[in-house]
Amino acid sequence: MRDVYQEQLDQLADELAGMCNQVAEAMEKATRSLLEADLQLAEEVISEDIRVDEIRATAEEKAFALLALQAPVATDLRIVVSAIHGAGDIERMGDLALHVAQAARRRHPQPVLPAEVAPYFAEMGSVGVRLARKAGDVIRSRDLAAAAELESDDDAMDDLHRHMFSVLMDPGWSHGVGPAVDITLLARFYERYADHAVAVARRIVYVVTGRMPGPLTV
Amino acid sequence: MRDVYQEQLDQLADELAGMCNQVAEAMEKATRSLLEADLQLAEEVISEDIRVDEIRATAEEKAFALLALQAPVATDLRIVVSAIHGAGDIERMGDLALHVAQAARRRHPQPVLPAEVAPYFAEMGSVGVRLARKAGDVIRSRDLAAAAELESDDDAMDDLHRHMFSVLMDPGWSHGVGPAVDITLLARFYERYADHAVAVARRIVYVVTGRMPGPLTV
Repeated sequence: MRDVYQEQLDQLADELAGMCNQVAEAMEKATRSLLEADLQLAEEVISEDIRVDEIRATAEEKAFALLALQAPVATDLRIVVSAIHGAGDIERMGDLALHVAQAARRRHPQPVLPAEVAPYFAEMGSVGVRLARKAGDVIRSRDLAAAAELESDDDAMDDLHRHMFSVLMDPGWSHGVGPAVDITLLARFYERYADHAVAVARRIVYVVTGRMPGPLTV
Repeated sequence: MRDVYQEQLDQLADELAGMCNQVAEAMEKATRSLLEADLQLAEEVISEDIRVDEIRATAEEKAFALLALQAPVATDLRIVVSAIHGAGDIERMGDLALHVAQAARRRHPQPVLPAEVAPYFAEMGSVGVRLARKAGDVIRSRDLAAAAELESDDDAMDDLHRHMFSVLMDPGWSHGVGPAVDITLLARFYERYADHAVAVARRIVYVVTGRMPGPLTV
């Protein structure tokens, strides 16, 4: 009986790590759809988000069943509570990738981004995808050094986010209000996506150490 | 012993409801600081947010202790799991009120909002504050009809949010990119604030019925 229980805990972690890979792929595709004005890719991201939502619901049900039937304590309880939080964060990452894809779809066949800001979004996309994959790795490995790495990746995202605002606020900005509004929201989506990946890693630090690292300043 | 346990469950709900009132007050003040370019009020909101974070941490610790020591099942377990989720949502509402206050502080002594959009933000503020207070009431009462009311208040917020974009995108917009960027983010903060209040109410529906209402579309 105890073995089945441990297997269930491992399975829960596997599902969350799998979710991370799914939202990494979603953000990778969403960024490509944004940069290449690729409607089909955008539609794929939009229609696939429901699967992330389903896995989240299933993971939460499993976590609930573990609490009800096994009454875990100590580290095991931290694993289950962190899985509940993590599932919420990762689902939200999927929503944010979806929002990026929706922006690409909304402006299609026009590109959303003026050519001069596209490279920043390519970079935000790759930092975001890397964060999501690392969060998945940390869920599997519970490696505290790897968890700490996400914080510096997130700093890179914050720098990119801040830089986008300085580009928009520059008197030389020549693309008007519409693209500025799109870019403001898109940059925010990437930045929040990164924050949720960091939150997932921080919950793993809590699982291992019993203490939450300091709060995210966002 | 059983009585102490029930008392602890009630106390947890009371704390969350109290948190709702705190973030309602924070958003009320933040909106006033925005509309009146009131720096002192903005500073108050910013410095008080730490208290919401602390209550959230305490509520989560209590929820964790209840899980570890009482191994609740059925409705009681749903209460504790929902409290964990709710504490996260309400803390985020506090962060969003903080972001509004930070925008007011950043532009001080200039007003952030052109006069013509100020009334929409006054309205978003009052809808947001109402949602937060209602979420607190629903936590206390577990009244499903009251929980459903939050959905229609949230529709009002979504309408205001959409309307702000049409104002920004209108060719008659004469305030340039800077204020448009501020308004884009501010409108998003209010809209997310409302979404989190609705999420709190939905968790209470789950406590009472054992089923989550459909997902928020954001």
